[in-house]
Amino acid sequence: MAGDSPRDLVFITSNTNKVVEVKGILKEYGIESKHMDLEYPEIQADSIHEVALTSARHLCERVNRPFFIEDAGLFIEALEGFPGPYSSYVHKTIGNSGILKLMERVQQRASKFESVVAYADSIREIVVFRGVAEGNISLEARGEGWGFDPIFIPKGANKTYAEMGIDAKQRLSHRRTALERFAVWINQRKRNGGLKFSL
Amino acid sequence: MAGDSPRDLVFITSNTNKVVEVKGILKEYGIESKHMDLEYPEIQADSIHEVALTSARHLCERVNRPFFIEDAGLFIEALEGFPGPYSSYVHKTIGNSGILKLMERVQQRASKFESVVAYADSIREIVVFRGVAEGNISLEARGEGWGFDPIFIPKGANKTYAEMGIDAKQRLSHRRTALERFAVWINQRKRNGGLKFSL
Repeated sequence: MAGDSPRDLVFITSNTNKVVEVKGILKEYGIESKHMDLEYPEIQADSIHEVALTSARHLCERVNRPFFIEDAGLFIEALEGFPGPYSSYVHKTIGNSGILKLMERVQQRASKFESVVAYADSIREIVVFRGVAEGNISLEARGEGWGFDPIFIPKGANKTYAEMGIDAKQRLSHRRTALERFAVWINQRKRNGGLKFSL
Repeated sequence: MAGDSPRDLVFITSNTNKVVEVKGILKEYGIESKHMDLEYPEIQADSIHEVALTSARHLCERVNRPFFIEDAGLFIEALEGFPGPYSSYVHKTIGNSGILKLMERVQQRASKFESVVAYADSIREIVVFRGVAEGNISLEARGEGWGFDPIFIPKGANKTYAEMGIDAKQRLSHRRTALERFAVWINQRKRNGGLKFSL
């Protein structure tokens, strides 16, 4: 990243689907961030909070500037929280059709999408922000979208995330909520003079 | 573990179901081992080899004596290897009934159980041993047993692991194969004078 300052805030992910969405939301709050394409280990744990926190701790040893990561998962009530922290593996293997098959003949379709943002500042403090979107698993896949977007209907809507289009989805997504909390906190800290990187 | 020698070989697991089985197999080869009940992190990875290797590396920093761990997974061909390295989480959430539901109307039922043993010696070299049992997913759960044993029929058998009883299962299990390879290697190394712990 030639020409970058070691004080620039970086968003670390190898999932390019997320980059535009994440940077866009932060920008609304006046926060510039750069993308760093880096793979990092994730542990097996029942909560994505724990997964992200451990990854951030690990990354602190490799990345010498303020950074954040984002992890998300779909938790289905009738399936005891499955696929939860293993959402991307489950999507890659059994996919949306596997989830719909598991949910055949299941009346109780409540589920939630959860997002966590783990931020490490220049003195290696880590803070985690969380966003949740409640909703239901649809009866069939509808719309074009990545991940579980075609089978998740947020509460109060009758379209799936995928049918809504990215703008409408982003207005109520779990990822937006987590990022907004992060952004508000960053700006507050900046006003209080406690921020260690340049915006 | 009062009275233990720091040179004793220890088997680290928090899954007590495994202890008797694992210690028994090693004993057949004249190898004594002690159980250490310790939880350790596992990473998310597509192969259990990688999961076990990373856990062993981590444990090297915490455990000051020769040790081994064992990890196993069920890989179902028609489900792209699912549940694989996440077998215990998947069992805890959707369970055997979830797997059978995913396999409804699926003709191709081939699957394999895989076990890896990761051993770290006193100079912190790590060696990994692997055992595989080929088989099929049954049409329904049969027999009493832990994990996926009631839905796995090993090749050449018509009973599930759970129906066979522990002795018959152990004669052809993936875990036995991995442990036997480990035991043969240990004994060979001992004969060659290269072994650093007391047996």
